[in-house]
Amino acid sequence: MTTGPVHEALAGARLVDHHCHGVVTGDLDRPAFESLLTEGAPWPGISPFDTPVGIAVRRHCAPLLDLPRHAPADVYLARRAELGAPEATRRFLAATGTDVFCVDTGYTPVPLTSPGQLAETANATAYEVVRLESVAEAVASAGVEPDAYAETFRAAVEEAVRQPGVVAVKSVAAYRTGFDLDPVRPSDPEVTEAARHWLADGGRLADPVLVRHLLWTAVDLGLPLQLHTGFGDADIRLHRVDPTHLTDWLHLTAGTIPVLLLHCWPYQRQAAYLTAVFEQVYLDVGLTLHHVGPARARAILAEALEITPFRKLLYSSDAYGLAEFHHLGALSFRQGLAGLLQERVDADELSLPDALRIAAWAGGDNAHLVYRFSAAS
Amino acid sequence: MTTGPVHEALAGARLVDHHCHGVVTGDLDRPAFESLLTEGAPWPGISPFDTPVGIAVRRHCAPLLDLPRHAPADVYLARRAELGAPEATRRFLAATGTDVFCVDTGYTPVPLTSPGQLAETANATAYEVVRLESVAEAVASAGVEPDAYAETFRAAVEEAVRQPGVVAVKSVAAYRTGFDLDPVRPSDPEVTEAARHWLADGGRLADPVLVRHLLWTAVDLGLPLQLHTGFGDADIRLHRVDPTHLTDWLHLTAGTIPVLLLHCWPYQRQAAYLTAVFEQVYLDVGLTLHHVGPARARAILAEALEITPFRKLLYSSDAYGLAEFHHLGALSFRQGLAGLLQERVDADELSLPDALRIAAWAGGDNAHLVYRFSAAS
Amino acid sequence: MTTGPVHEALAGARLVDHHCHGVVTGDLDRPAFESLLTEGAPWPGISPFDTPVGIAVRRHCAPLLDLPRHAPADVYLARRAELGAPEATRRFLAATGTDVFCVDTGYTPVPLTSPGQLAETANATAYEVVRLESVAEAVASAGVEPDAYAETFRAAVEEAVRQPGVVAVKSVAAYRTGFDLDPVRPSDPEVTEAARHWLADGGRLADPVLVRHLLWTAVDLGLPLQLHTGFGDADIRLHRVDPTHLTDWLHLTAGTIPVLLLHCWPYQRQAAYLTAVFEQVYLDVGLTLHHVGPARARAILAEALEITPFRKLLYSSDAYGLAEFHHLGALSFRQGLAGLLQERVDADELSLPDALRIAAWAGGDNAHLVYRFSAAS
Repeated sequence: MTTGPVHEALAGARLVDHHCHGVVTGDLDRPAFESLLTEGAPWPGISPFDTPVGIAVRRHCAPLLDLPRHAPADVYLARRAELGAPEATRRFLAATGTDVFCVDTGYTPVPLTSPGQLAETANATAYEVVRLESVAEAVASAGVEPDAYAETFRAAVEEAVRQPGVVAVKSVAAYRTGFDLDPVRPSDPEVTEAARHWLADGGRLADPVLVRHLLWTAVDLGLPLQLHTGFGDADIRLHRVDPTHLTDWLHLTAGTIPVLLLHCWPYQRQAAYLTAVFEQVYLDVGLTLHHVGPARARAILAEALEITPFRKLLYSSDAYGLAEFHHLGALSFRQGLAGLLQERVDADELSLPDALRIAAWAGGDNAHLVYRFSAAS
Repeated sequence: MTTGPVHEALAGARLVDHHCHGVVTGDLDRPAFESLLTEGAPWPGISPFDTPVGIAVRRHCAPLLDLPRHAPADVYLARRAELGAPEATRRFLAATGTDVFCVDTGYTPVPLTSPGQLAETANATAYEVVRLESVAEAVASAGVEPDAYAETFRAAVEEAVRQPGVVAVKSVAAYRTGFDLDPVRPSDPEVTEAARHWLADGGRLADPVLVRHLLWTAVDLGLPLQLHTGFGDADIRLHRVDPTHLTDWLHLTAGTIPVLLLHCWPYQRQAAYLTAVFEQVYLDVGLTLHHVGPARARAILAEALEITPFRKLLYSSDAYGLAEFHHLGALSFRQGLAGLLQERVDADELSLPDALRIAAWAGGDNAHLVYRFSAAS
Repeated sequence: MTTGPVHEALAGARLVDHHCHGVVTGDLDRPAFESLLTEGAPWPGISPFDTPVGIAVRRHCAPLLDLPRHAPADVYLARRAELGAPEATRRFLAATGTDVFCVDTGYTPVPLTSPGQLAETANATAYEVVRLESVAEAVASAGVEPDAYAETFRAAVEEAVRQPGVVAVKSVAAYRTGFDLDPVRPSDPEVTEAARHWLADGGRLADPVLVRHLLWTAVDLGLPLQLHTGFGDADIRLHRVDPTHLTDWLHLTAGTIPVLLLHCWPYQRQAAYLTAVFEQVYLDVGLTLHHVGPARARAILAEALEITPFRKLLYSSDAYGLAEFHHLGALSFRQGLAGLLQERVDADELSLPDALRIAAWAGGDNAHLVYRFSAAS
């Protein structure tokens, strides 16, 4: 494997992880650990360790628990339990070499570390990303009249983003409707009518009019908007979350807020197209990085970077629940990007100073430009 | 090219080819051979040998006919005729190193070897896969009243799968309607009404209601269901056979039958997503393997395996008509998968025992789990 | 990096660039140059040089201006200005090693060299490609009654293609409607009705009926039809320009005119499928080649060639405005294809004579067969 100065630079760089989640706070038995290891559900007869991410955990996480590389799953879990979840988490987060985490706090079916706890454990700074669907659902749960929904939601979001440390909002429209939506801002009567049905029927926010309304509310906020695109769990209809379905909406909202396309796989080329033609669009390949592991991170980054302007690539882990994922995401990103850039330097397709500049941009500088952390602190 | 113990293991492994067809029984002149070599039709001025698969045949099949590698097409065909089709077929099938063939017997515009003949020639065991559209069309040909269609079709399928050696059913819904179908089981009156039109108009089964009915009938049978997805001939509308269009149907049928996504290219990543989030979904990259040849098999397997659980990848050749394809499919699979795994072992991303385990699973063990051949014999 | 006789052959081959545009005739200041460098618009704070194509210009174009490889953008532009646009253009066009350019003359928001000027500068022959939308829009601008639109457009196109040196027509239906169109030829009343609305409303031709009419008019002309597919500027809805949406139309028009799928990325595999199953379909990966640069050209060509018959791949630069792009397109094509073929020769997957034959076909012979230049001169 090619190594060289770009590897050294990226191995030592302090990262900004612009989108991640907290870590499960309690100890994890094997079923609980395995259930976090996969985007599917654990299935009888198939161990979630027998996956690319399982292989990557045994290869790259075991040594941080003082085990040999490729330790068996049972040995791994026994040692993790022996050390205790807090110590394992501490080791993995420290190994990420991350200075800044932007934490999506809106999805907590199990208790997770808060941004503050994550920051303290990792000796880093944490900012918060407000998940808009969670705010909308809290508004609904608290009780609201349909014709007051729009205003109440707006007020609740404005209140949420005024909290210290909030730097962005996020939407999981991908999970709720996909992106083949009417791009136009819905009218007040449309929103009221849709709210009437939703508030009567209950359940999570999945009405197309209300999802559009949510995206347009984000535009009004002025903060960067993170959008889940591509890969996720079985709730996704993958063909409906190709981010190019957002093209008309991106035209209508040009000149307003930065839009950060998260994950993207297998649509990383489609996402790259959007970053190349829309000023406000950025991308990362988080989530994918740890699921495919270092063995394929470089191939996916290479596709993502075919036409993406180098100021448009950000790093995220999208790690959720297991600190192993924070570690693997960072490692895959460092090794994948370094491999790609170093190979080009070795082939004289890229100068070393340019390669180092691109690495620094993607590792953190681009995120600093988008989120203006110093203003948010 | 990297070689090593994984190559040795896969070169010597006995395979299960979980989806293939028979071999043309008669001798083949050049036009007949060329017409089988391509998924298109032969065209004036363009030899089907001037394709990736044609190059692969001259490279990897010529030596089995005692010719030098890269023998010209004319020389190849002359030698093949000289040896006779049965001897050529015998050599290619023996070279596959296959213990078990699952043979789709439902598509025979030209006479093909039966599963029994294929098994005898290859010194292997053959099982049968019942193509559901063929059963439905036989029911229609035999004459049936619209309101008896559903029951008659069900009875015919149940009879077909009761035959000795039947281990699975298959649908070519991809060719008939694509997968952007209403996922819900159609009602009896809907089926009767659709049958009324189809039985009056004739032709092959391509009515969306009847295709849905066929897929739901497969669910009731309880056998594994093979689904053609992705690449095929000009009858395909490729954008409609992205398997993620099946997501809603997979949710509705979760917990029932195994679903095996065949071929998949160029949607191997989309198929991989489905295997990662649905317990019942498996994939292969058959058909593609011989069309792209060993030169690209590894790249396609690498994409297919980015997130696919290692118990979810199966081997198939989807060879049809030419025993060259059975050979090339097996060779591309062995070399492609070995290259991919060995490289990871060499980079210490994967342990050798894990690599050998994954190779054994994909080469046959996974198919044994899905099809339970011993129960079917 | 692998090098060998295929690299030598392709480095020295004279190319046919079957689809390109002219070069801006005047001098270019930095904003004007940067605006041509990107398919987006130039954005404050992000230099279009900080992209893969910007890196490729500094690496591969700087030396032709007597600068060191990887010269900074400012140095590059200063030296370019010092030499003057005509001298820079002369150097880049000469470096392409192109014998024949087919020039799309239908898009000139800024003044560009004519085919004759391009030919003279490059010491090559230039043919013309008539852009059908431009002809239609000229007909509308000149004034026409709705019920005379079809006949007037047909006459104008027939007149345009009778001009000396015209070898093909082109449509940018991709930009106007995408390809998810009714494939059937529209009736005369439908065309008249659609023309009534368009001629009243003005603007560019984007009515689905008129776009279909335009494509069917192309069929009647009998000349090869170039179709923009895939990657382009922000006017594209990328998911609607996957060329497999043309499948039904290709069935209806089989046996009529050659159809050349331009660019294709990120749908190069989908385009390859069409070339493999439709006699009349060809592809190139122009535009993409210079945007991704030599560092990724090989990977994209490898995908495009997975199943494409070797007589179906053509070379184009799709260079527009900057002669740098004509140079980079040719260089990326030569190096990318040579790398791919030489590697297969080295692995004994392909014989050297076959590799050289494939290189010669793609570099020019295939274009000669499609366009019959000698007949057109």
